[in-house]
Amino acid sequence: MDSKKVYFFGEGQAEGNAKMKDILGGKGANLAEMTNLGVPVPPGFTISTEVCSEYYANGEKYTKDFKDEAAVNLSRLEKLTGKRLGDPSDPLLVSVRSGAAVSMPGMMDTILNLGLNDKSVEGLAAKTGNTRFAWDSYRRLIQMYGEVVMGVAAGEFENAIKLLKTGKKIELDTELTSNDLQTLVNEYKKIIKKAKKIEFPQNPIDQMWGAITAVFGSWGNERAVRYRELNSITGLKGTAVNVQSMVFGNWGEDSGTGVCFSRDPSTGEKKFYGEYLMNAQGEDVVAGIRTPQKITTLEKKLPLIYKELVSIKDMLENHFKDMQDIEFTIQQGKLYILQTRNGKRAGEAAVKIALDMVKEGVIDKNTAVLRVESSHIDQLLHPRIELAARKKARPITRGLNASPGAACGKIVFNAKDAEELRKAGEKVLLVRQETSPEDINGMAASQGVLTSTGGMTSHAAVVARGMGTPCVAGASEAVVQGKKLIIGKKVFKEGDFLTIDGSTGEVYGEQLPLFSPTKISPELKTFLLWCDEIRAKTKRGDVEGFKIRANAERPEDAKRAIEFGADGVGLCRTEHMFFDKEKLIFFRAMILSDTTEERKAALKKILPLQKKDFAGIFKAMNGKPVTIRLLDPPLHEFLPHTKEEIEELAEYLGVPPKSLSPKIEKLREANPMLGHRGCRLAITYPEIYETQVEAIALAAAECVKKKIDVHPEIMIPIVISSRELKFIRPLVESVFKRVMEKTLCKIPIRIGTMIEAPRAAVTSARIAQYADFYSFGTNDLTQMTFAFSRDDAESFVPAYLEKNVLEADPFKTIDENGVGALMRYAIKEGRAVKPLLKAGVCGEHGGDPKTIDFCYRAGLNYVSCSPFRIPIARLAGAQAALRNSGA
Amino acid sequence: MDSKKVYFFGEGQAEGNAKMKDILGGKGANLAEMTNLGVPVPPGFTISTEVCSEYYANGEKYTKDFKDEAAVNLSRLEKLTGKRLGDPSDPLLVSVRSGAAVSMPGMMDTILNLGLNDKSVEGLAAKTGNTRFAWDSYRRLIQMYGEVVMGVAAGEFENAIKLLKTGKKIELDTELTSNDLQTLVNEYKKIIKKAKKIEFPQNPIDQMWGAITAVFGSWGNERAVRYRELNSITGLKGTAVNVQSMVFGNWGEDSGTGVCFSRDPSTGEKKFYGEYLMNAQGEDVVAGIRTPQKITTLEKKLPLIYKELVSIKDMLENHFKDMQDIEFTIQQGKLYILQTRNGKRAGEAAVKIALDMVKEGVIDKNTAVLRVESSHIDQLLHPRIELAARKKARPITRGLNASPGAACGKIVFNAKDAEELRKAGEKVLLVRQETSPEDINGMAASQGVLTSTGGMTSHAAVVARGMGTPCVAGASEAVVQGKKLIIGKKVFKEGDFLTIDGSTGEVYGEQLPLFSPTKISPELKTFLLWCDEIRAKTKRGDVEGFKIRANAERPEDAKRAIEFGADGVGLCRTEHMFFDKEKLIFFRAMILSDTTEERKAALKKILPLQKKDFAGIFKAMNGKPVTIRLLDPPLHEFLPHTKEEIEELAEYLGVPPKSLSPKIEKLREANPMLGHRGCRLAITYPEIYETQVEAIALAAAECVKKKIDVHPEIMIPIVISSRELKFIRPLVESVFKRVMEKTLCKIPIRIGTMIEAPRAAVTSARIAQYADFYSFGTNDLTQMTFAFSRDDAESFVPAYLEKNVLEADPFKTIDENGVGALMRYAIKEGRAVKPLLKAGVCGEHGGDPKTIDFCYRAGLNYVSCSPFRIPIARLAGAQAALRNSGA
Repeated sequence: MDSKKVYFFGEGQAEGNAKMKDILGGKGANLAEMTNLGVPVPPGFTISTEVCSEYYANGEKYTKDFKDEAAVNLSRLEKLTGKRLGDPSDPLLVSVRSGAAVSMPGMMDTILNLGLNDKSVEGLAAKTGNTRFAWDSYRRLIQMYGEVVMGVAAGEFENAIKLLKTGKKIELDTELTSNDLQTLVNEYKKIIKKAKKIEFPQNPIDQMWGAITAVFGSWGNERAVRYRELNSITGLKGTAVNVQSMVFGNWGEDSGTGVCFSRDPSTGEKKFYGEYLMNAQGEDVVAGIRTPQKITTLEKKLPLIYKELVSIKDMLENHFKDMQDIEFTIQQGKLYILQTRNGKRAGEAAVKIALDMVKEGVIDKNTAVLRVESSHIDQLLHPRIELAARKKARPITRGLNASPGAACGKIVFNAKDAEELRKAGEKVLLVRQETSPEDINGMAASQGVLTSTGGMTSHAAVVARGMGTPCVAGASEAVVQGKKLIIGKKVFKEGDFLTIDGSTGEVYGEQLPLFSPTKISPELKTFLLWCDEIRAKTKRGDVEGFKIRANAERPEDAKRAIEFGADGVGLCRTEHMFFDKEKLIFFRAMILSDTTEERKAALKKILPLQKKDFAGIFKAMNGKPVTIRLLDPPLHEFLPHTKEEIEELAEYLGVPPKSLSPKIEKLREANPMLGHRGCRLAITYPEIYETQVEAIALAAAECVKKKIDVHPEIMIPIVISSRELKFIRPLVESVFKRVMEKTLCKIPIRIGTMIEAPRAAVTSARIAQYADFYSFGTNDLTQMTFAFSRDDAESFVPAYLEKNVLEADPFKTIDENGVGALMRYAIKEGRAVKPLLKAGVCGEHGGDPKTIDFCYRAGLNYVSCSPFRIPIARLAGAQAALRNSGA
Repeated sequence: MDSKKVYFFGEGQAEGNAKMKDILGGKGANLAEMTNLGVPVPPGFTISTEVCSEYYANGEKYTKDFKDEAAVNLSRLEKLTGKRLGDPSDPLLVSVRSGAAVSMPGMMDTILNLGLNDKSVEGLAAKTGNTRFAWDSYRRLIQMYGEVVMGVAAGEFENAIKLLKTGKKIELDTELTSNDLQTLVNEYKKIIKKAKKIEFPQNPIDQMWGAITAVFGSWGNERAVRYRELNSITGLKGTAVNVQSMVFGNWGEDSGTGVCFSRDPSTGEKKFYGEYLMNAQGEDVVAGIRTPQKITTLEKKLPLIYKELVSIKDMLENHFKDMQDIEFTIQQGKLYILQTRNGKRAGEAAVKIALDMVKEGVIDKNTAVLRVESSHIDQLLHPRIELAARKKARPITRGLNASPGAACGKIVFNAKDAEELRKAGEKVLLVRQETSPEDINGMAASQGVLTSTGGMTSHAAVVARGMGTPCVAGASEAVVQGKKLIIGKKVFKEGDFLTIDGSTGEVYGEQLPLFSPTKISPELKTFLLWCDEIRAKTKRGDVEGFKIRANAERPEDAKRAIEFGADGVGLCRTEHMFFDKEKLIFFRAMILSDTTEERKAALKKILPLQKKDFAGIFKAMNGKPVTIRLLDPPLHEFLPHTKEEIEELAEYLGVPPKSLSPKIEKLREANPMLGHRGCRLAITYPEIYETQVEAIALAAAECVKKKIDVHPEIMIPIVISSRELKFIRPLVESVFKRVMEKTLCKIPIRIGTMIEAPRAAVTSARIAQYADFYSFGTNDLTQMTFAFSRDDAESFVPAYLEKNVLEADPFKTIDENGVGALMRYAIKEGRAVKPLLKAGVCGEHGGDPKTIDFCYRAGLNYVSCSPFRIPIARLAGAQAALRNSGA
């Protein structure tokens, strides 16, 4: 049945199943699976994703075969329900919903109540005995269809309803009478006619095809494309379309609709969790217009339904072996399940659910490790409000703790302002009554999101959790009016500071100090140890396991790295030690030396300071390797800039301030990134590296005498030729040897090189002869390979991403085809010379999960990243090992 | 005879010959050859270069086998001459000279008069009846031996002779009596004893071995190593050593010594040319202490000797089929030839000799083409003094026209100052009494060299000609005293301007305007047409021949390029058109536009200006391809800087000057080389490229209507991804097509890309799909691959070259191992997709002969360089074709 395009489901039997996500989409596959499981799913059929890809391939047209197959399935649905689409006395009504293989919340469009027209609306009214309901359903159809299928501006319909309510002096839609709605239907039809010069289609078959085409169209709309880009979703055929008979949560007071989770998606606790609204359609819950009730209150209201729902959610979780996110509708006291899917969850919940499910014997450890996402771990390490500040501060209101983590920033009231202010370098907090898919970029640009309406499953909450952006949703005391936020008597305007805590739901009317957590929870600790076990089983070159090291310059960074589970220090940037104001002046004196003698004198003062830092790091890393990179950046980065700084330095040096200016000017470079830096300084001023190596050697010797197990690795930056190493390696060795002889110590060192200039990668076969290890400086390698300056790329990379010229920001995720190809070449050529050559990555890519996956595949031995990224890297490393094990 | 280490020559028979340069060195091989030809060469033996390499390989020791073989050859020499080394009554005296396979003037050390000691000096005096001569020879031996073998400072001996002369109130060495010289010998021996705690060796065998060891030692000394580096001489085994019986040009008035050329080394005229000094040793001629006489005056003085010399030089030129540089000595009326070699020559001479020798039937065209060096062509295109200025100016003195070309600069009096001032960005002229090997770096740093003594074969003249640096030598009216140059009544001090003309020997006491020649001589034209014939025979991809194109932005550049023989324009940098002040303001208005509309309005004014330039270039290049690169550099390069410029622009734009500052600031970049430039501007502001393409298309259409044959090629700069081309190519095509339709023209265009970011090279397989041709932007490719900013590299590249970390400046000669490897990869991958993909090089490497050779080997179809380099590139292209033809 290769050519099968439409899959029926209904009455306990379905043509598809859960494994067919690729062609039925996530929603369709699960509707089929649930049907087969005997769950009460309203019957319908799913149009496969292949139809979508054919539709686009054929210039947005359908084949006859497909149209025939759809007609056959529609007949079958009519037969099964005993109703006919467009029947004036008892019409079959259907919903048309999108559903791709990957969930894209809010991105695709949905049409409900299809089948209603001027005649069948009367039939529905007669059949249900509820005229208001019938006209409300018809009104909703025309509005949705007008907007989504026919492209009429939403504002037109909203204006009409507003006018009507103002005229009648009422506030809520529910106050509109059956007659009002009938009037509105006529208004709406006029609006469509005026805007589009055609009538709202009265033929339900035309309506259905219009809706199907709109769903396919929405697959290619800008928002959906952007979402796929943002989330790097590629390789899909398209979206499926689900045509399903309608059930109504707004049939009356014994009807309702809701969303529930088989476990708490915020904490992971194993308890039934969800929300519902009586006499409402599903869109009302998700859109956040009315604030819904907790699922547990349903037990009192409809005990039998509640019991059925609980047993279904248990069955579904057991069946899918994961926490389920279930949409249900109650129509006149009967329960229908409209959708189930693996639920999105907050970081804490992800870890807890993974741990619990292993404990419960539902899944194994490997599955658990693959199920937690890097962004989950990221959330757990999100900023929080400093304890002292929190104690003193009083929240001005509370909302739902929709996405964990604290955020603080200047408030803005729309997505565009958020993006613009962010570009201008400000930290912003997006405040909205509710968010919609149009706000995605603005949310991504914000530190956090605050909404005044909507629940835990509102758009803002779902998207923010997915992004890992802190969010407080449904802060119902807050009123958003234009560019004002009113909370009680307080009025906040654009640019005012606000702090939110997405973990507690608290909102503070001021700027509070945040901190990033430095300890990890016992659950996360356990989970990460599982990750480490998996990593430890891999073999890479001469080292067991795929290691995660930290970038650390100060002893306290090294300590934190150990707490976060680092296997060593992969990058200690010696120059960072001089960002400390106290040390900076000595460094500046060194830079501005005129002669080798002056420089040596200045270096002499620097030596003990560096030694102390190195000793502290060695101590923290007892037993683990520490890779120290000798001075890298251009010297002028450390020069004094302000008048005060120049005067201070001049005083220290005992020279007139004016005499420093020409020297400072001379050190300025046109392209410092490509300038006099790194080991170039060792060729021109060997005494700098000599001093640094002496400090390392003395620190190592001192530690060894205190019984600390020291493994120094000295790394030469920005190498472009084996001849540089041929020159520098003996220099390093002789200084180290001299100190070892003097201190009577025997400490082995490794001397390696950064591979960060393309030439180093290209000439790797020669360079490997002089290097004990490689560390890929992917930041610089990306800069040189792309000819993109990190500092300047901001002016064109956004346009590149927007126009799809770049798939991803190459400074965030490694560019496999370009930079990655150079890395693979360097490794291949290097290991041809030195089979056990150790190789790693340092720089910010080291903490990016996709990059880590690449590094694993490329045969690297380790990645190194900032201490805060270590937990994520431990997870990503384990996942890379599992995914690429060939098992 | 594999293990043979020493080769005897003498009495018309030699064990070696001219083909054995590798093991006998150039001098030794030619001594052997001349001996076999019956030329009167003093007998001796040559120690092979293999001994030198063994000597270094064995920790600077000799093998017994070799020492035995040397002893056998010494006996043979003693037998042949009938004299014995150290014989107190009639000693055999020998010279010990170096001689590598490649001539290295002044680099290696020589010892003469070996065999003299306290006893044999008396024997020599008695035998020759010339006591003064004997003691002078002994004195010279001790001095040379002391300096070169024993390492005593030269100044010590000079002081002793100076003291003696002052005491006796005499000025010239020749005024010293036999007794004086005897005193000096004693002084000299004391100096050695004092400085080195050992005696000057009285045993002649010890003397000989000391001298041989010194020659080998000099192979490894800093000067020699530096010379080989400067001249990229690699792959040699070492130097040979020639031990030869002495003849004396200073025996008396019927003795003399000289250097002659079989043709004029400056002009190439077929006339006997040379200089000699009577009663002098060879070193006196070369060192330039006395100014020698013209060779033709020898005919009157010693007609028989002159006749013999003429017949020998004719025979040698005929035999070696090249112009010969011959050293001779006359001892007591008998002629000896001490050396012959292919003579170094000035550019004009090189071309003329090559043409003449083909005409004479001595060599074929291919040999002629291989015999002219790029530097020769370079010299022919050297700067000259502007005619008008020359007419007005009066030379203050004249010297020898030692190396052609005019030079102007601030004078300095030693090599160190020359290097330093040059580093500071000044043009300098080195003024010396005479130059020595220590001055090489200073000469290389200078625009030109002026010496007050020395002839056409003096160190300054030989080295300057080799370097292509203009030189006036032996300006005998000039007096150099410390840091003063005195000419007549005028005194010039450091920093004063001087202009010299190395083609005429004139010296001007002022700064004169220079110009570079724009026409080429008929001889050079003929020669270059031979080169073109050779190039035309090669086949590269879809194009016949290996093409030489020009970088040209203005119609006048294109015309000059055609005069110089360009095959087309390989690089027209559209932005260079705006360096013109008149056009710049429009361009600035475009850059500072706030909106697309403003930008389009500004571009509209630019369009006709660009069109006119393009049309002019197409016209000049009638029938030849013109590659136009769309806008490349970062926009901020064109911004106004001074207050006046900003005010002028503000007035034009009708805005207050202050309003421009923030915009200008915003465009500033941290690393502009890696910034918002090239096709990145087409992604962000497509209208810029659209306008440029429109101007190209309109210009092409206009030319076609005037019957001009137009071949536009549009080139996209700084591409990093095929997706950029996928975006830009349709844009270019549609604009071009629109103009073609409007103008009713059909002009084919090619659309290609620069390969200048490493990523472009790495992803070539993808990029080739969208490119009709590649042009390697080797300047930028070198910058990115090395992470060397051209603007900043000056601060460390000299140290890299000095410490031999870099073999050559990668911005001058392509780095084959790094940049070249990327280029080869890009070509291979690109042609795998598109077998006929045309590829070339533009940028400054395109005019470098070594790079051209690489480009030929790498399979490129063309190189493009500045119009002035076209003749050199035509030669280099032909030589590459000959060298790599496998024939």
